Amino acid sequence: MAKIVECIPNISEGRRPEVVEEVIAEVRKVPGVVLLDYSGNADHNRTVVTFTGEPEGVLEAAWRLIGKAAQLINLEEHRGAHPRLGATDVVPFVPVRDVSMEECVDMARSLGERVGRELKLPVYLYERAATRPERRNLAEVRRGEYEGLKESIKTEERKPDYGPSVLGTAGAVVIGARPPLVAFNVNLGTSDLGVAKAIAKAIRGSSGGFVYIKALGVNLAERGQVQVSMNMVDTQGTPLYRAMEFIKAEAAHYGVPVVGSEIVGLVPLEALLETAAYYLNLKEFSAEQVLEKRVFGF
Amino acid sequence: MAKIVECIPNISEGRRPEVVEEVIAEVRKVPGVVLLDYSGNADHNRTVVTFTGEPEGVLEAAWRLIGKAAQLINLEEHRGAHPRLGATDVVPFVPVRDVSMEECVDMARSLGERVGRELKLPVYLYERAATRPERRNLAEVRRGEYEGLKESIKTEERKPDYGPSVLGTAGAVVIGARPPLVAFNVNLGTSDLGVAKAIAKAIRGSSGGFVYIKALGVNLAERGQVQVSMNMVDTQGTPLYRAMEFIKAEAAHYGVPVVGSEIVGLVPLEALLETAAYYLNLKEFSAEQVLEKRVFGF
Repeated sequence: MAKIVECIPNISEGRRPEVVEEVIAEVRKVPGVVLLDYSGNADHNRTVVTFTGEPEGVLEAAWRLIGKAAQLINLEEHRGAHPRLGATDVVPFVPVRDVSMEECVDMARSLGERVGRELKLPVYLYERAATRPERRNLAEVRRGEYEGLKESIKTEERKPDYGPSVLGTAGAVVIGARPPLVAFNVNLGTSDLGVAKAIAKAIRGSSGGFVYIKALGVNLAERGQVQVSMNMVDTQGTPLYRAMEFIKAEAAHYGVPVVGSEIVGLVPLEALLETAAYYLNLKEFSAEQVLEKRVFGF
Repeated sequence: MAKIVECIPNISEGRRPEVVEEVIAEVRKVPGVVLLDYSGNADHNRTVVTFTGEPEGVLEAAWRLIGKAAQLINLEEHRGAHPRLGATDVVPFVPVRDVSMEECVDMARSLGERVGRELKLPVYLYERAATRPERRNLAEVRRGEYEGLKESIKTEERKPDYGPSVLGTAGAVVIGARPPLVAFNVNLGTSDLGVAKAIAKAIRGSSGGFVYIKALGVNLAERGQVQVSMNMVDTQGTPLYRAMEFIKAEAAHYGVPVVGSEIVGLVPLEALLETAAYYLNLKEFSAEQVLEKRVFGF
């Protein structure tokens, strides 16, 4: 059975479709790599690209994409609402099938080394591939953005993991490995934003909650509801059902019901199977019992 | 995307491995058909075979299996605990991907017609393929078993849908179409078998419960627990979570907790996704959001 890795590079271009297409074309050139999606945002001036395949092909596609983006995107001219350090801003590798996190970390390091050596771009490793604890957090790596990094890159604290300690117009590339991320939003039957903010604060790791949950309270004004908007960065470590049960209990404390939820984008099958097994109180359930898994062998 | 049908013939041989292998070999001969499983039981003297593929190949494999079983299995010499009418006792077709129930009904009829005409075996259509309401129920079709059918086959009531109204030593074949069946057992924290029996009676369609649930109360003596053992014959019509919530509520009435559950064998992905979506209160969730489905396109 083939090993499958997912790669989700973010490039700092969301306004010029011809530039995006030229960068994407590099991914399409690599045999065996499947482009799943790419979607840009003009306000952010940023495009998120998703492709999958066997590790070798995925590495080659990421390499080509980084090279083309560095040619075509000039950070001196880039403006957008989303924080960024470089033309290819961030490149995470995510294990999908028969691949360990360690293999994805190795991919991140091997790509980073090549980008530093051949493209002469500064590279920072993040999340599971980080070489320093403070670089695990992407927000921390991106602190000061492209403009701030021009000076601070010369300090020992901001020394790149690969490549020169000098920032050109293509900026720096942040490369890493992480589990699949799930965007999970829970809606509450109240218009009191304070309740959503209090629950978000209680559930997120940064203020004492679950280590693998990031959360914000959001107002859904047109619905008269509020939302706990979460990024679940490791659903093996902190499962979906645990987030839901925690929010239900906290909301009950305010006399507020959970009225719905949504998953934005993709979710790994395992996270949903685990949720079904939890609520059905299934003992010893295996994903091998899923009919489609047996038939199609994915 | 290829159409995929599952077929689960039951043959009346579970003691002579060489006979089972010879019958199975017919399935293996058909290109594109994947043999997923076969497992026999000596007490039942019966083997359940599971294979999948595109409709044409699956039809051919079922046809070959029926022919070989009719040659090798003599019902005059067959003894076993499980009720049966013939050498190949029952042949259900189950839609898996891009196939409608109507197409599976057509497959059942076309196979039945060929078995009647070329093999000269009596054929009864059952479940969704049934031509008479009383033949929807397999237990009803199998009433009196092989031994009883020898005489009753001559009556109008038991006239086969295809083939002669005469029973040879290969018996009759029951062919049909049905949704995937899920064996779902729920364990209760009591040793009082009466509680499991009362809940099984309340939940099963035959005594006023859910139309797509068959259920029995079972004693798990070595654990000091009892079990509501269910066949969920259509999890789209009656979902897993509804059975679980019903049993929880009924058990609470007796002051008894649900202490676990199990799914025996295979379960369609959709049944688990629906369960996860129900308990997470997800609105507008689509199976297309499952990462593996996007990557592997199953």
